[in-house]
Amino acid sequence: MKKLINDPSDVVDEMLDGMVAAYPNRLRRLEGMEVLVREDAPVEGKVGIVSGGGSGHEPTHAGYIGDGMLDGAAAGEVFTSPTADQLHAMVEACDGGEGVLCVVKNYEGDVMNFDTAAEMADMEGVEVEQVVVDDDVAVEDSLYTSGRRGVAGTILVHKAAGAKAAGGGDLGEVKAVAEKVVENVGTMGTALTSCVTPEKGEPTFDLGEDEIELGIGIHGEPGTQRTEMMSADEITEHLAGRVLDDLDLDEGRQVLTIVNGMGGTPLMELFVVNRRLQELMGEEGLETWDAWVGDYMTSLDMMGCSITVCAVDEELKELLGAPADTPALTVTE
Amino acid sequence: MKKLINDPSDVVDEMLDGMVAAYPNRLRRLEGMEVLVREDAPVEGKVGIVSGGGSGHEPTHAGYIGDGMLDGAAAGEVFTSPTADQLHAMVEACDGGEGVLCVVKNYEGDVMNFDTAAEMADMEGVEVEQVVVDDDVAVEDSLYTSGRRGVAGTILVHKAAGAKAAGGGDLGEVKAVAEKVVENVGTMGTALTSCVTPEKGEPTFDLGEDEIELGIGIHGEPGTQRTEMMSADEITEHLAGRVLDDLDLDEGRQVLTIVNGMGGTPLMELFVVNRRLQELMGEEGLETWDAWVGDYMTSLDMMGCSITVCAVDEELKELLGAPADTPALTVTE
Repeated sequence: MKKLINDPSDVVDEMLDGMVAAYPNRLRRLEGMEVLVREDAPVEGKVGIVSGGGSGHEPTHAGYIGDGMLDGAAAGEVFTSPTADQLHAMVEACDGGEGVLCVVKNYEGDVMNFDTAAEMADMEGVEVEQVVVDDDVAVEDSLYTSGRRGVAGTILVHKAAGAKAAGGGDLGEVKAVAEKVVENVGTMGTALTSCVTPEKGEPTFDLGEDEIELGIGIHGEPGTQRTEMMSADEITEHLAGRVLDDLDLDEGRQVLTIVNGMGGTPLMELFVVNRRLQELMGEEGLETWDAWVGDYMTSLDMMGCSITVCAVDEELKELLGAPADTPALTVTE
Repeated sequence: MKKLINDPSDVVDEMLDGMVAAYPNRLRRLEGMEVLVREDAPVEGKVGIVSGGGSGHEPTHAGYIGDGMLDGAAAGEVFTSPTADQLHAMVEACDGGEGVLCVVKNYEGDVMNFDTAAEMADMEGVEVEQVVVDDDVAVEDSLYTSGRRGVAGTILVHKAAGAKAAGGGDLGEVKAVAEKVVENVGTMGTALTSCVTPEKGEPTFDLGEDEIELGIGIHGEPGTQRTEMMSADEITEHLAGRVLDDLDLDEGRQVLTIVNGMGGTPLMELFVVNRRLQELMGEEGLETWDAWVGDYMTSLDMMGCSITVCAVDEELKELLGAPADTPALTVTE
């Protein structure tokens, strides 16, 4: 499988340099680390918001560094957790004196290394809190997790926590809104093709020309169910149905929806999915307050998408709709 | 080849409805037409800026509708020019009394149909001007064009003309800045894979596992040269070298660069390309004023990228850096 890369072992390092080269006034790389932070980090007097995880999910997470979202993002090797040392360095670099919230996708390696990093920072007097995101409704436990996986709903946690911190919230308040998003968000995804990692150079699972996987994760693991190819409408109904079953929302609730591309799917197809998704929201008696469509959390070159639904109240609408200015997501007043 | 679609013949129609469903406060579909316009079109007292072309290049063009860029975009069937009737309806809908500039990518069908639409509008008293974009340095003439093709540099024409119009420029002034971009921009692309159209369902050209195409267009046509797979750095050097040869810029010139994904290439790889591209700009004695990395003008699910370089002066920097607020591109002050 062909890729626009040089030596596969350099891909994360070169990607990070390429990001800084694109946004030199916004992003800064910590010396010798696979960590990007705001160019002006730490922001004194503001709670720092950081995240991180394996690479291969771009623009997650570094694309969300900027005003109103993240202060820092650590990038592990492809589909591999960042080390505790890297996470620790990030937390230190993003502490502006008001403490740091770590937004952690629920994978065992990520959780363990963020825990260790938090302990290290704590010993140096940095106040650290964590929120673990587990929005994937497809699984109870999975290949890499105890409990559900953290997937595209994580971006909404970045957004709400980032807005709360930008507005002057203290660490406890910022953590509380992050947890509120986690309690109100669900996601489920499908793959039309496997992804191909740079190191391996071939698909991580085989899938026939008339088959798809439902309930996929974002690390090339197969889904919970293999089925025959379906139409975009049928796939949308299946994914959204599972998410809505899990959320069990009262009629009339307002929601934010995301149709998220997995990296190899044209935007055209994501809009075709969004069309049916918004019809469905109406049929279910829900009101879409905002609809996001695009590649927010990818799995390299995988074709497919995930659907996220997040129930919103006045507080979450204010935070999710607040201004943000990052390479991958901009919200204007 | 699997796609997230329903009936292939409905894909453009359903995509457009899905876009409006995502941005109901920003976009409006003209009744019975495959045309999207600003929700508040026409903007009285402002020159209208419109574009259009075949579908399959999303977010081009409708993703650029909004403050500071386009007022309307017409979507033909996949890789097929919009009809003159559709273009005419768009021009009419976007005329706020100051005339309309049509930004046309150089393809025979597009140019012909925009010409006809302009004549129709002119007969009704709407002042219409056109600028034809032909930034692809790979070809002199091509399968679908007399002269060079219009590709990703077109987005910079939307941006500069849109900013000039938003700032109160008259039709002549807006056309002049659009032409200034055209004179100063060049692009060249490569394909690692062919794209697959919804109707055909299989690759439009065959390419071996160790081959790539250089000098591709955006309609699934093969490139001008087939070569062995190269590293990202080698590909970057080749593409950028051809563009810079064409532009022949004096040392010290400031430029805006775009690394544009063709639809199926992960963002990770585009940043790897950008890393080498920015090194090269330095080696060539050029100064990057701004660097864009992402999927701006795609070719369905094609893997590959194009590199655009646009020489900028004070006027173009002011216009390209002016605020814009569209689904696919937001520039903040």
